[in-house]
Amino acid sequence: MLAFGQFAVYELFVMKKFIPLFLALAGALSVHAKIVTQTAEYKQGDTTLEGYLAYDDSISGKRPGVLVVHQWLGLTDYEKHRAEQLAQLGYVAFCADIYGKGIRPQNVSEAGAQAGKYKSDRRLLRARVNAGLDALEKNELVDTKRVAAIGYCFGGTTVIELARSGANIAGVVSFHGGLDSPMPADGKNIKCKVLVCHGADDPFVKAADLAAFEDEMRQANVDWVLIKYGGAVHSFTQPRAGNDNSKGAAYNERADRRSWAAMKMFFAGIFHD
Amino acid sequence: MLAFGQFAVYELFVMKKFIPLFLALAGALSVHAKIVTQTAEYKQGDTTLEGYLAYDDSISGKRPGVLVVHQWLGLTDYEKHRAEQLAQLGYVAFCADIYGKGIRPQNVSEAGAQAGKYKSDRRLLRARVNAGLDALEKNELVDTKRVAAIGYCFGGTTVIELARSGANIAGVVSFHGGLDSPMPADGKNIKCKVLVCHGADDPFVKAADLAAFEDEMRQANVDWVLIKYGGAVHSFTQPRAGNDNSKGAAYNERADRRSWAAMKMFFAGIFHD
Repeated sequence: MLAFGQFAVYELFVMKKFIPLFLALAGALSVHAKIVTQTAEYKQGDTTLEGYLAYDDSISGKRPGVLVVHQWLGLTDYEKHRAEQLAQLGYVAFCADIYGKGIRPQNVSEAGAQAGKYKSDRRLLRARVNAGLDALEKNELVDTKRVAAIGYCFGGTTVIELARSGANIAGVVSFHGGLDSPMPADGKNIKCKVLVCHGADDPFVKAADLAAFEDEMRQANVDWVLIKYGGAVHSFTQPRAGNDNSKGAAYNERADRRSWAAMKMFFAGIFHD
Repeated sequence: MLAFGQFAVYELFVMKKFIPLFLALAGALSVHAKIVTQTAEYKQGDTTLEGYLAYDDSISGKRPGVLVVHQWLGLTDYEKHRAEQLAQLGYVAFCADIYGKGIRPQNVSEAGAQAGKYKSDRRLLRARVNAGLDALEKNELVDTKRVAAIGYCFGGTTVIELARSGANIAGVVSFHGGLDSPMPADGKNIKCKVLVCHGADDPFVKAADLAAFEDEMRQANVDWVLIKYGGAVHSFTQPRAGNDNSKGAAYNERADRRSWAAMKMFFAGIFHD
């Protein structure tokens, strides 16, 4: 094998044209990354919660941690897959369980009841999501100075509540989350950066709530960015939501792809700058 | 020098840790790119216009072209610098001249008069910006299937008018542009993708104009994205605007950096997918 010095001297002038090749090889190598996943119980008060951990075992050393908060259906394969995608990006990902071990709504009626319980009790919601954050940060692979949280729908609302609770993290990302707040003055507690990925045609986020959210961020001098995706309604990152916008919730491949890329760019800014 | 085959065999397993090095070297090499710049006269009707071309002479073959449209002060060093930045990214960049050769406002009063003339005559504005697009597309280095336009303030308004004129291009990006339209029905002519980078506290873009713009995009089924940057006012990409938000126009380094990155991601989507 060539020593690095020789490599640098002999290969420098052909480097530029080889860059795409190098990137392709890096991509090929990452396919062989060993993503380890496991369920993990933790507690909030006396309540047992069951989260899901994912990380790349082929990377050594501490790395950023990302908390993933579920939709109103509770922790499903959808969030687990997102955690695995985050692990492939080199992060330690942990899916929080807001509802509790074994509480996995089987239909929209059960989902509405569970989500409603926490949306009407923001103190409890904040306690639950902070318990998930603690569980993530206790993982020895996590660099606790570089932690973020992302959430979908109900989970989007939840990560903004995590920020409003004053969590000492780097950033939160909401994907089609509800943006209403019963306690807008709590915006002043926000210490982290906020990215909101929003479907421009989402009928479940009222214009008044959107305006109030913006004012909350403004008044509290938060570092925030809001992206509106044209043609996207609620649940735009969720393939199982179908493709009928008239239902108010539908998958939108374009907005899904763009919002994931925006999240990666946001992470680059908060973790690697 | 090692042949590629040897390189691949021997170096593959250390590739992953060398990627940052490769990228650093690529960055170092790009500094040696030879950016060629030149002023270029062209016509709209009987009026002579004087634009500014920039491209990297070390790249061979056709590449995407990007039209750059100036602020209300007319074509200045600011837009020329942006064109050079775009050339460094590998694009052929051409700064349009909307006002005409020699018409370079020296103060805000002259700037207001010139900008006002075109903002109140959108047909003329569209003719002028399309003349710039033609000039760019006539450049033999431009791949005319991959052309976009970006603009700042007045230029942001102008590139959206370019889209509304039905220009057959891939996309437009407005940075802190005015979003009003005297002819909102013209949204139906838009064939390209639209990215709007907007300061969330910009006092020069009225809430009603923003809402009308969104409705125009919605009604016309345009592929559009709007990004609101918290804490940013008008002119957030313009270092000469100072840092006093209370004036309504000020530089915002964070929003400048993020919007440039968003533009690059947008270009990746429209040029390279």
